[in-house]
Amino acid sequence: MNLIKTLILAVSAAVLAFPAAAQFAKPEDAIKYRQSSFSVMQTHFFRLGNMVNGRVPYDARAAAENADTVQALARLPWPAFAAGTGQGETRAHPAIWTQQAKFADLSNKMVAETVKLSAAAKTGDLDKLKVAFRATSSTCQSCHDVFRTR
Amino acid sequence: MNLIKTLILAVSAAVLAFPAAAQFAKPEDAIKYRQSSFSVMQTHFFRLGNMVNGRVPYDARAAAENADTVQALARLPWPAFAAGTGQGETRAHPAIWTQQAKFADLSNKMVAETVKLSAAAKTGDLDKLKVAFRATSSTCQSCHDVFRTR
Repeated sequence: MNLIKTLILAVSAAVLAFPAAAQFAKPEDAIKYRQSSFSVMQTHFFRLGNMVNGRVPYDARAAAENADTVQALARLPWPAFAAGTGQGETRAHPAIWTQQAKFADLSNKMVAETVKLSAAAKTGDLDKLKVAFRATSSTCQSCHDVFRTR
Repeated sequence: MNLIKTLILAVSAAVLAFPAAAQFAKPEDAIKYRQSSFSVMQTHFFRLGNMVNGRVPYDARAAAENADTVQALARLPWPAFAAGTGQGETRAHPAIWTQQAKFADLSNKMVAETVKLSAAAKTGDLDKLKVAFRATSSTCQSCHDVFRTR
């Protein structure tokens, strides 16, 4: 192997080790960012759940706002699962970085369901919201089952 | 003061003590929620700042996405500054709860500027983005000066 090739591989490895470097100064920043976006998303998703499950009265306007917020947040966390961000205060499972295609597939499914959720919430029809809420919820669960540690 | 009046006042006081009870189970939940939403918003606002200040190349599409995220998050934190959420791990200044009209005015100004920021980012004109970024930034600062502890 010649020197140029060795150098190129070394630089590539360094870049791959933390490709989110352009977006996050430190791995901890990426972890904090994705946890914060999941946390805010979860708050609004649970508010929808409270309506869907009859714990609070159905309010079409509040449902639409909550669903919009869920949709806006759903696309955010994924770039923050960069290589080199699997250590520290995180429940991210190491499989995220060994089964990247599966992780991307499950996260894309969730994002797609939140688009339907937002549309369903805007209809003002609680039954439609229930269907979309449960479909979205199952995409959360199927990803957590594999890619989140207990 | 008759008994009914006393009872009404007592119930009102209990409700006012933590009016976000319907939305957050515990004061810590409200604090975590508002900190998370500020943190995610800040990440995207700083990315715009990097473009505005020439630290990263201007990318019109990324700017529009970041500004949309800032706008979506800007309206979230305020209901979480409920009475009874000023203690604990928070930099919220006690003045938030003694100068509520001023706090609401400053937060409304910030939200309004993020709407303009999002519109400016969509023009694809870096100069317009710079103007809107600085106007938004000054609304952050003017609120932090009064209502955030060091």
